[in-house]
Amino acid sequence: MAELSRPLAKHLEWRGKIEITPRAPVNTRDELAVAYTPGVSAPCLEIKKNEAMAYDYTGKGNMVAVITDGTSVLGLGDIGPAAAMPVMEGKCVLFKRFAGIDAFPICIDSKDPRVITDTIVNISKSFGGINLEDISAPRCFEIEAELKRRCGIPVFHDDQHGTAVVAAAGLINALRFTGKKKGSLKIVINGAGAAGISVAKLFLRMNFGSITLCGSKGIIYDGAPYNNKAQQDISRVTNTEGQKGNLTDAIRGADIFIGVSKPGVLTKEMIRLMNGDPVIFAMANPIPEIMPDLAKEAGASVVGTGRSDFPNQINNVLAFPGIFKGALAVKAGEITDSMKEAAAEAIAAVIPDGELRADYILPDVFDMRVAPAVADAVAKEAVKLGIQNRT
Amino acid sequence: MAELSRPLAKHLEWRGKIEITPRAPVNTRDELAVAYTPGVSAPCLEIKKNEAMAYDYTGKGNMVAVITDGTSVLGLGDIGPAAAMPVMEGKCVLFKRFAGIDAFPICIDSKDPRVITDTIVNISKSFGGINLEDISAPRCFEIEAELKRRCGIPVFHDDQHGTAVVAAAGLINALRFTGKKKGSLKIVINGAGAAGISVAKLFLRMNFGSITLCGSKGIIYDGAPYNNKAQQDISRVTNTEGQKGNLTDAIRGADIFIGVSKPGVLTKEMIRLMNGDPVIFAMANPIPEIMPDLAKEAGASVVGTGRSDFPNQINNVLAFPGIFKGALAVKAGEITDSMKEAAAEAIAAVIPDGELRADYILPDVFDMRVAPAVADAVAKEAVKLGIQNRT
Repeated sequence: MAELSRPLAKHLEWRGKIEITPRAPVNTRDELAVAYTPGVSAPCLEIKKNEAMAYDYTGKGNMVAVITDGTSVLGLGDIGPAAAMPVMEGKCVLFKRFAGIDAFPICIDSKDPRVITDTIVNISKSFGGINLEDISAPRCFEIEAELKRRCGIPVFHDDQHGTAVVAAAGLINALRFTGKKKGSLKIVINGAGAAGISVAKLFLRMNFGSITLCGSKGIIYDGAPYNNKAQQDISRVTNTEGQKGNLTDAIRGADIFIGVSKPGVLTKEMIRLMNGDPVIFAMANPIPEIMPDLAKEAGASVVGTGRSDFPNQINNVLAFPGIFKGALAVKAGEITDSMKEAAAEAIAAVIPDGELRADYILPDVFDMRVAPAVADAVAKEAVKLGIQNRT
Repeated sequence: MAELSRPLAKHLEWRGKIEITPRAPVNTRDELAVAYTPGVSAPCLEIKKNEAMAYDYTGKGNMVAVITDGTSVLGLGDIGPAAAMPVMEGKCVLFKRFAGIDAFPICIDSKDPRVITDTIVNISKSFGGINLEDISAPRCFEIEAELKRRCGIPVFHDDQHGTAVVAAAGLINALRFTGKKKGSLKIVINGAGAAGISVAKLFLRMNFGSITLCGSKGIIYDGAPYNNKAQQDISRVTNTEGQKGNLTDAIRGADIFIGVSKPGVLTKEMIRLMNGDPVIFAMANPIPEIMPDLAKEAGASVVGTGRSDFPNQINNVLAFPGIFKGALAVKAGEITDSMKEAAAEAIAAVIPDGELRADYILPDVFDMRVAPAVADAVAKEAVKLGIQNRT
């Protein structure tokens, strides 16, 4: 991996991709007395009287924890909490860069979902939101659900929901481009882990069409012996015809392929089994389920990948900064499915009709219109729902 | 408290006294690929191979957690975790301002020492050191001891040890000024909580003389019915004559008074019972055990307080930034008593003989020579001890 020597050198130079910077000056006795003792007593007492004042007098309202246990990091797998930190720091850089959000990386040295959940709950008052990251399935579902129940602030597992939101945005625009009609589409999702299941849930909610999920052992159907709990749950609302078999069986007659799985698992032959103008989102990183040129040769109308060196990059950075920005702006107590849907629509709407092309169905990751548009849509939806935080 | 309206207004303006700032640029696809995927895999894999590499490839080596449970905040008492956050943020500002250390505030929403300890251990791999803050006694002793046992990084309860170090520095210089001799001094410490007990321990270690501790119920003696566990432990090495009684009884014939207690508890009459040239450190905040002018009238030779508007401010900020800086610089696994002693001597030595005066026995808090001198002394002592961290 010779191409990794430059990132290594840069990380060594940085020794940490984030730093903590004071916003309060402490250069004189007077400034010290305002920012620290004795003046600091005043905001302390206001927050004691009314805990919601923490949003006014501390950084809580713009502070997100980026938390991992290091069990499912990028394509590297279970590398442990310490080794996951460079990714978490990177994520924090993106939060600030794209939405002005202060984000702090925390790795948890346990694999026990209950320990992880308790630990996060115990420190949660320090933050305005919690971004879970790179926690393996199906543990991530349990951890997120429990945190949502116990914390009064937004909890968002980006590997699930960020992926789902951006895939949904891509699909909205792929339909605009191809003229395919939402509602009757046959969609195959390959990869039945955290991302795949979350994509399935959001797509169902958005009524794109019928969904068939494939895991590593084949099509997910109700009662499949290889289902974990999350897969069994999703099997009740997907694959309603109870199809069994492998990816080739599933993809016959499909309109849309969503890959959150492994390099090279989709072949040209499989694409040729799909309906006309198929849409292919091959999001495995760093090597997609099929390379874009091969997918095009097999007839794909629109192809997206996770990579920055191909068109239509399906990258979570289009979603999470704006989603948290919007949720924090109105002190939303959670990030609901309808807020995710609003985010997907906002991302898609950044590209006007006249600019939409087969190789431009998603905004560039550096398109600085995206995060504000997402934040605005998410905040409006939260206000509509009337969901205040419980702090 | 009209004087608190300006701090309140400033805190509202800041909405958080710290922010997270990227050190890695992410303005181009290439930069994104270096700081985040796919380049970030390289440092992750290096740390996976050897966890000590986290000091090279992440911010761990310069990152301190400032952690509280909000049970003993300033003079405000048990105001809870959320209300303690303005103080923790302020502390983080000081870490950066005085030693360039990145510090992050975390409040823990539990009062159970075991829960607090477990929570901190679980997140400790994210940090190079842990600064405990404003945790009530005697819980703080148990929490710190257990963390020292379980974490491989420096753990330092500043209310105990920072106070002890700066008081020791002040005493070293008060002795230089008065010509009193270390070894045979009679020292009274009023306040038998976290700070008082830690001061007693460090002073004993430094062989200043005999020590008598007074708590709110009187002199601490071996077997006193009001002793908590920490007081009972310290009673075995202090007050060796087994004196009983109150502060007035204790102070007769004393050379040094150290107050970490309550406003106004020391009277001129008590000072007149002391030996010649008494040294008075009246550190109760914001109102000292006796006001400096009264102490001087009663014959005090040297007077120090916790306040910035009187000479000889005994302020922890002289100690903790440099202590952590030194410990982190050499990746010390802990902050030992001898490192604290080295810190006290370094603070004292900042003032040369020719400049030492009754009203200048401690450097100004903004004296930027202090933190580097402390860091240097602490690092040297750690290297001498050969204490590497256990990460």
